Amino acid sequence: MAYIEPRILKGFRDFLPPAEIARRKLIETIENSFRSYGFVPIDTPVLEYAEILLGKGGGETEKQVFRFKDNGGRDVALRFDLTVPFARFMAGHREELALPFKRYHIAKAWRGENPQRGRYREFIQCDFDLVGSQSAASDFEILLLMCNTLNLIVKDGITVHFNHRGLFNRFLSRLEISGKSVEILRIVDKLAKTGRDETLNQLTELIGDKAKDVLEYIEAPGSFDDKLKIMNEKATGGGTCPEAERLMLIHQFMAETGTEGSFVLDPAITRGLDYYTGMVFETFLNELPEIGSVGSGGRYDNLVALYTKPNTGEPLCGVGASIGIDRLIAALEALGKLEQNPSFAKIAIACVNQNDAGCSHALAEKLRKQGIACDVFLDEAKLPKQYMLAEKKGITWLIIPGEGGHAGGHAGGLAGDHAGTSPALTLRNLQTRENREGLTIEDIAEILKSL
Amino acid sequence: MAYIEPRILKGFRDFLPPAEIARRKLIETIENSFRSYGFVPIDTPVLEYAEILLGKGGGETEKQVFRFKDNGGRDVALRFDLTVPFARFMAGHREELALPFKRYHIAKAWRGENPQRGRYREFIQCDFDLVGSQSAASDFEILLLMCNTLNLIVKDGITVHFNHRGLFNRFLSRLEISGKSVEILRIVDKLAKTGRDETLNQLTELIGDKAKDVLEYIEAPGSFDDKLKIMNEKATGGGTCPEAERLMLIHQFMAETGTEGSFVLDPAITRGLDYYTGMVFETFLNELPEIGSVGSGGRYDNLVALYTKPNTGEPLCGVGASIGIDRLIAALEALGKLEQNPSFAKIAIACVNQNDAGCSHALAEKLRKQGIACDVFLDEAKLPKQYMLAEKKGITWLIIPGEGGHAGGHAGGLAGDHAGTSPALTLRNLQTRENREGLTIEDIAEILKSL
Repeated sequence: MAYIEPRILKGFRDFLPPAEIARRKLIETIENSFRSYGFVPIDTPVLEYAEILLGKGGGETEKQVFRFKDNGGRDVALRFDLTVPFARFMAGHREELALPFKRYHIAKAWRGENPQRGRYREFIQCDFDLVGSQSAASDFEILLLMCNTLNLIVKDGITVHFNHRGLFNRFLSRLEISGKSVEILRIVDKLAKTGRDETLNQLTELIGDKAKDVLEYIEAPGSFDDKLKIMNEKATGGGTCPEAERLMLIHQFMAETGTEGSFVLDPAITRGLDYYTGMVFETFLNELPEIGSVGSGGRYDNLVALYTKPNTGEPLCGVGASIGIDRLIAALEALGKLEQNPSFAKIAIACVNQNDAGCSHALAEKLRKQGIACDVFLDEAKLPKQYMLAEKKGITWLIIPGEGGHAGGHAGGLAGDHAGTSPALTLRNLQTRENREGLTIEDIAEILKSL
Repeated sequence: MAYIEPRILKGFRDFLPPAEIARRKLIETIENSFRSYGFVPIDTPVLEYAEILLGKGGGETEKQVFRFKDNGGRDVALRFDLTVPFARFMAGHREELALPFKRYHIAKAWRGENPQRGRYREFIQCDFDLVGSQSAASDFEILLLMCNTLNLIVKDGITVHFNHRGLFNRFLSRLEISGKSVEILRIVDKLAKTGRDETLNQLTELIGDKAKDVLEYIEAPGSFDDKLKIMNEKATGGGTCPEAERLMLIHQFMAETGTEGSFVLDPAITRGLDYYTGMVFETFLNELPEIGSVGSGGRYDNLVALYTKPNTGEPLCGVGASIGIDRLIAALEALGKLEQNPSFAKIAIACVNQNDAGCSHALAEKLRKQGIACDVFLDEAKLPKQYMLAEKKGITWLIIPGEGGHAGGHAGGLAGDHAGTSPALTLRNLQTRENREGLTIEDIAEILKSL
């Protein structure tokens, strides 16, 4: 028979159980948090018409996308994010949904980037969005959900840096440099990476003396109130404006939920992406800020513009965010906080006699019914070999049926001929190498539940 | 701005929240069952080298696969099942894994089939396999896991039809018609669809008078013991054989786990796929057998043959199965047993004042911390409009904060100026239209938990 080398594509990954279990657990924590806020899942095809995905042109994206002709000659592509398919989804289904609509989508996307540390051609996106509400409350809800979800994973270890892009634009407008806002946003967004001096140089080259003013804005010091006062002053020249008022309301919500300690107003946060128009934010790990943002998002004006016939339909505003699963896992790993276990089961039943599988599963079912995952070993082998197998599988406890088979340990009358025999199970802790003998399966369930 | 019609590709589907939630719940039930048996998840890339996926040639498959050249000129394809990638995975990683290895993989696969009722170009596969054990115990574990998992979904509503292909082959060998076994298996496999007479006709055309003998074998009547006696007699002419002994052992395991009522020995089950060599099975819903098998599988001799250099490495035998998620959902829907809910939240907090979002989330957190998912409405609107929104979202309970804002209902001292005020929350049941007034959030948590 022909031999084919079992290789995989560059930039793609297999996930073995320890890594996949860690990833699943993380995703389940995130998903449960989303659900507890009333967010619901949707799903969309991984393959779409290329024109749907690439509608906006996007030079770099277009080069990276996996695009081809299908067998029917259609020009198709693998999605490169979940935002574009969500926009297409909302344009097609808005009549079927109750607005405001709170959805999440955790799924794979693909980009043919040159693989480098932490960048893969296949990766998981984790997006949540709230569309159809203009309210400050919806901005806050996305901020709160990001904060509370990440705090479940990195206990009290994150800070959300938030800002209002509209306020910054008002300031640029007042300085009469709105025309250069795209370039300014791009430079400002890199302040942390580039450093203060280089940022000032780049800004001066672009807007001359006004660079100093911009730097004063993005470096406004002090408390939330201090910063906002400076920012508002610079943006309005006195008085107030809707953007500053919205930031104040959001800050009030933070105080009322007791979460203000996890949030920092950061006028340097602008997000590079051009579709954000209002509140924007990025999230950093307190113990490892240098790894970059692990969760970011913001408010946009109209999600469905590209897929709505001109002069028909209302715009659909929203606010959304994305959690960087891969980066979060890399960070937890670097911090030694990623629990990697090769199994969900902490207990197994050793195989003393190959013909005992039925009785072993009857016992195992009693544990499973009480929420205790239980593996059953299948092949006869000397006990030390079975201890090794258990350890490789990350299993701590091993049940060893007595010599005479399952005997009394097997309750429930299925093994009638053993009825009345005394308990015959031994429970071994593979870490301490201690055995406890003469137990029933009910005893063992109690021991495990008491841990 | 250019307009792009928000269409999706033929044979692909969007999943709106009710359908996606139903699918997620089903998958989570299945996954939890797998985990409770010590099965662990893996993940593999959706895109692989075409030669890896199509190694075996497979005419029909080759025509249906989504195959293209990537930007680097590689000949790649989207996986069309999870079995082939698993074989490649095991060939590449067997040294890193403890054997026997019990894995599951629930993920999408793609085939460019002509879409028809119940067939899609993008679909979810749900596979579980146990590799590296020859034991009858491993055959039984796959059978038991299929049975117990599906019984969680369709309470006591399934029957697993199992058989041993090796015993049937022994019988064909004794009849001296082994050379035609592929064709015979194909005809026999369709007995239920084709009917007895047509099956006899087709077999007679193929093997003459021996057709009657084959029909007697596959229609062997009676209890497990009766059937096995006939089958064994026909296969061996008297005495016994390893295949019959294995079936007896598996049947003993069924009795010992009290599950024999869910299993039927069915000598007509052969499975079309040519890689099965031992025990094979299919699962039917008792209330809707005509929808076809919702879970099937069997034992194979060597998973990694294609990806192992000739004359190196041990073969890797195993036994595995697949649950047909799409068909199962269609069946549950047809039986009126598919719970379709547009939300995970059963309760929401109405928006009486747009500026109360902080206090509302502070209340909602108290419910969420007790495991009660709670939505928070964001926009001020007359209450009847909010009742309608709640109903559209599948929410039964609505908390209505009092006129004076959250007042005493807002415990925890965050709203200091309201301290000492009496409880001010109203709980409305949107189904009965009953209101209960003057409640604290703790009262409401108790009411919901007592349901």
